[in-house]
Amino acid sequence: MPTAADTTPEVVAFSAATAVTPGDPGTFTADVHPEWTIGGRPNGGYLLAALARAAVAVAPHADVIAASAHYLHSPGPGAVQLEAEVLRAGRSASQVRARMSQDGTPCVETLFLVGALDPAAEPYWDAGLPAAPTTDFADAIRLPATNPAGLAVPIMGQADVRIDRDSLGWGRGRPSGRGELRGWIELPHGEAFDPISLLYAVDAFPPATFDIEMTGWVPTLELTSYIRAIPAPGPLRMVQRAHLVDQQRVDEVCWVWDSRGRVVAQATQLAGIRLG
Amino acid sequence: MPTAADTTPEVVAFSAATAVTPGDPGTFTADVHPEWTIGGRPNGGYLLAALARAAVAVAPHADVIAASAHYLHSPGPGAVQLEAEVLRAGRSASQVRARMSQDGTPCVETLFLVGALDPAAEPYWDAGLPAAPTTDFADAIRLPATNPAGLAVPIMGQADVRIDRDSLGWGRGRPSGRGELRGWIELPHGEAFDPISLLYAVDAFPPATFDIEMTGWVPTLELTSYIRAIPAPGPLRMVQRAHLVDQQRVDEVCWVWDSRGRVVAQATQLAGIRLG
Repeated sequence: MPTAADTTPEVVAFSAATAVTPGDPGTFTADVHPEWTIGGRPNGGYLLAALARAAVAVAPHADVIAASAHYLHSPGPGAVQLEAEVLRAGRSASQVRARMSQDGTPCVETLFLVGALDPAAEPYWDAGLPAAPTTDFADAIRLPATNPAGLAVPIMGQADVRIDRDSLGWGRGRPSGRGELRGWIELPHGEAFDPISLLYAVDAFPPATFDIEMTGWVPTLELTSYIRAIPAPGPLRMVQRAHLVDQQRVDEVCWVWDSRGRVVAQATQLAGIRLG
Repeated sequence: MPTAADTTPEVVAFSAATAVTPGDPGTFTADVHPEWTIGGRPNGGYLLAALARAAVAVAPHADVIAASAHYLHSPGPGAVQLEAEVLRAGRSASQVRARMSQDGTPCVETLFLVGALDPAAEPYWDAGLPAAPTTDFADAIRLPATNPAGLAVPIMGQADVRIDRDSLGWGRGRPSGRGELRGWIELPHGEAFDPISLLYAVDAFPPATFDIEMTGWVPTLELTSYIRAIPAPGPLRMVQRAHLVDQQRVDEVCWVWDSRGRVVAQATQLAGIRLG
């Protein structure tokens, strides 16, 4: 069966789609790729990854450890401008502020903690973690480039985002009511994940609220991600879960495991939603 | 039995201890109160509350909805300087950047989403929430102003922070290993909680890692809080939970229920820890 990727004219590597070009000190330009969008708007984690490239470029450390993003205005596809400023350069970590704007309009404001992740480290204590689902990548269903609400999601023709069969009732109009999506993600051309692309992964799933009630756009207002380890090669296992819909806002958490079964990233977000 | 508060010479109202004084447009001063500290360092949520007062003062909206804070340097007790800048003023919400510094050293960098919370709103969907513990405020044990590691925590002489008896084994050298603290909080003089003091509440418990292994200072690196509703009067019910200790960092979540049993705030933080 042909997948969405087979019929998409251009499948762009994630590293290319999030590349930044340095200009004056502390400034960069990037291009929001028209294929890395949902209903014409770029994915929030995708934008955060481009900002992280700018942050790491100015910082004296290499790995994003924590990222907090507030989304002010959704840029359209095309050129965006980035500014990055080191707030503090410490011995083992540094803090960076970075902003994305388009034609003078601030779009995303971010704070980063940048440090070093040890590829050889093992967790000291992990008994508080949720259990990873045990289903297989090959059995999961890749999401198509149009969602059940009829929205064009060309980004699904880029990354391979798959939902476990038992977590996909909402795709057939039968949400489970649990508010939880379980599945997988792989980058185009099998590009290996790294701390920067993990910032995209944690926001790559559809809203977990689709498993409660289908809606249109669920715009991210705030997204905070912690990168816990360098991921091993291979697709990532993910769980996205909603807790509370109140006053037209929903919070969601995301857990990300690598092929070793290690939690490599986690995130929380607050999003707007037209329910209630 | 006398509590810590009985022997503390000065119990300061939270609103007074976090007050900000406006100066030039967008600038404020505040005083880090020596009693609102742990081992001589102010609590991170307490600092965030002062920053939130500055953010709300410059914003066209009244209620903090989301706050992200990166902690760069711990200020000492005494004068601090705050700057707050509106990044975007929208119809229903605005975004604000605020910074706290002391004698020219940046201490805390924050981003706020400010909007309106409807006191009459009811949750639309809450089936994803954890269950609130069912023990009583009167049965819980108020934390003293010296912790089991011998550290002076004068802040416990200010706020009334209580831990459920069945969650307090770590106080007797017998942590449960679950990495979870359950209990309560009340402000001095019974001051009612509001969205700004909720930003303190979510960081008011000891580290949940005390329920794994006792350590010294567990400094907050990043703290993100979502305020979900205006709290009803009365003490707040809280759960603080650790998930993963890896590479000398730990993530913790905090859930806060008001006296109606409503989730009014939630938070996630990444902290440094000398384990592993």
